[in-house]
Amino acid sequence: MPDTVEGRDAVDLLERTRSAVDPELRSAVASLPASMRRVAMYHFGWERADGAADTGSVGKAVRPALVLAACRALGGDPHRAVRAAAAVELVHNFTLLHDDVIDEDPTRRHRPTAWSVFGVPDAIIAGDAMSALALGLLAGDPHPAAAAASVRLSACVIELCAGQQADCAFEERPPHEVTLEECLTMATAKTGALLGCACAIGALYAGGGAEEAAALDAFGREAGLAFQLIDDLIGIWGDPERTGKPAGADLAAHKKSLPVVAALASGTAAGAELAELYRGAMNASAVRRAADAVERAGGREWAQLQAGDRMSRAVGELSRAVPDLTAAGDLLSLADFVTRRNR
Amino acid sequence: MPDTVEGRDAVDLLERTRSAVDPELRSAVASLPASMRRVAMYHFGWERADGAADTGSVGKAVRPALVLAACRALGGDPHRAVRAAAAVELVHNFTLLHDDVIDEDPTRRHRPTAWSVFGVPDAIIAGDAMSALALGLLAGDPHPAAAAASVRLSACVIELCAGQQADCAFEERPPHEVTLEECLTMATAKTGALLGCACAIGALYAGGGAEEAAALDAFGREAGLAFQLIDDLIGIWGDPERTGKPAGADLAAHKKSLPVVAALASGTAAGAELAELYRGAMNASAVRRAADAVERAGGREWAQLQAGDRMSRAVGELSRAVPDLTAAGDLLSLADFVTRRNR
Repeated sequence: MPDTVEGRDAVDLLERTRSAVDPELRSAVASLPASMRRVAMYHFGWERADGAADTGSVGKAVRPALVLAACRALGGDPHRAVRAAAAVELVHNFTLLHDDVIDEDPTRRHRPTAWSVFGVPDAIIAGDAMSALALGLLAGDPHPAAAAASVRLSACVIELCAGQQADCAFEERPPHEVTLEECLTMATAKTGALLGCACAIGALYAGGGAEEAAALDAFGREAGLAFQLIDDLIGIWGDPERTGKPAGADLAAHKKSLPVVAALASGTAAGAELAELYRGAMNASAVRRAADAVERAGGREWAQLQAGDRMSRAVGELSRAVPDLTAAGDLLSLADFVTRRNR
Repeated sequence: MPDTVEGRDAVDLLERTRSAVDPELRSAVASLPASMRRVAMYHFGWERADGAADTGSVGKAVRPALVLAACRALGGDPHRAVRAAAAVELVHNFTLLHDDVIDEDPTRRHRPTAWSVFGVPDAIIAGDAMSALALGLLAGDPHPAAAAASVRLSACVIELCAGQQADCAFEERPPHEVTLEECLTMATAKTGALLGCACAIGALYAGGGAEEAAALDAFGREAGLAFQLIDDLIGIWGDPERTGKPAGADLAAHKKSLPVVAALASGTAAGAELAELYRGAMNASAVRRAADAVERAGGREWAQLQAGDRMSRAVGELSRAVPDLTAAGDLLSLADFVTRRNR
């Protein structure tokens, strides 16, 4: 881990975070009983389904990087926050494991999902164990901030659950019944909450008080919502060559993403047209017409403006806790990174 | 909660435990977001599926009673351990919720299971939230033993997961392949671990050290295994009028309970006969012959002797931490209660 940060970009920072956090993460996962360990090792991309070592299709470690960067921004020693960073990454991965079961998703990070390899029971059980492992890891950390961080992390798990539940419930409801407000709350719970919690835990580990933790939490949440808005835009207009998904994948799947819900709630003729298209199956031509309708209904522009607005709110929140933003370079470059990925 | 315990029996003690712990438990559950709260309220028997109040088919509160009784036995103030007792009961109920999903069980405590009422996704999500709620409740408890108790409780969740995983895996394997040793390990993880953890947490909340916590943990585990052995005997030879299940229900379901595995592993002709019966469907006559085969193979006697042996080991462990066993009256009467229920 670096002692100075200036001039290093986010990719480099994420790489160094992985080097710092992976040993802690691997040792935690290695402590699981064999039957759950193999599911977790597979999920993290460290093993193939047959147990052979794999070089990993591990995630980007954005959340652990936020823990360490927030700790550093508030003058703390990030070396002492490595265990907390590993706990946050475990929580993230436990929710992915269970979300894949619940959504019946066949692939994750270009590989078959854990439930599709090991079966639903083993995937549920491994997720349960990873959740308890994360909270136990933090509760057992001798750092004085560990108890406060544990309370935050467990509250965050509950909010992540609420987000996933709302997401499932939306899929069951007719498109016009889901309000933009509900959709933003869901996205905040599902994506913003853990980014915010990661930053808040970093602040607590730097010796920050409740006010600083709240400001860092708000920074992470707003940046997380910006990230989600950009992600939703990519899901409609992203370049298939860069995203690895067909054009308009989210529309073909009838996903009620933020630009779509904004368009449906716009009260425009284009919004009504979109609602009609969402009632039927979507071929390539329908997907093109739906993307066009979202744009004409103002959904694209709304999402772009919202993303910008959220990012400036994020920076505003951050400056409450870190008045001299030069100390927060890593946090800002991470926020910039997550809102620009794949564009 | 009582200040003295002599002469009061376990049923009374459980009743008083519920009165002491229920407000804490209800307030924790009430803090969940609405979508998960309704599943939890239903699971605890506090609400009907439509949200109307229900008088509850709540469990017996054995685990919270063990927390409070262990705390009292070691000279602690059980009033200060009420939150820890609620956390243990939440963990127990989270595992029941997920086990019912995994085992596809249609009923629990004479009511439709939560997943069959609210669907699998909502049951998984509510269980995830209850698990985090339990660990967060304990981590946020200002009691000085809270951190050590949190570490124990999270390790216990992982052991419960291992037990459930082994249980599922056994059902997939041919009967003769499951060894008695594996089966005892599974029963210890699935039943003994949380009873042991409840006792250990009570010890920690009384200010007990690692040695006392270990002795109380071993007491709970051994008593838990005795309980499981008795429960398995009831599953084969229990009086249908008292158990509410048809005679030999576990045999009809091909359950690899401890007496059955002991019989299968006996190397006797009766054991081979049982293995043959377990290969086919079981009508009432086959169930009678299977019960007879378990008995002739020595499975019934083995389980009875083991149960007695485990109970005396439990008392031996207890006396390591509480030399004057008169102080441990509640613990002993709870252990006695769980191993005698429904007989």
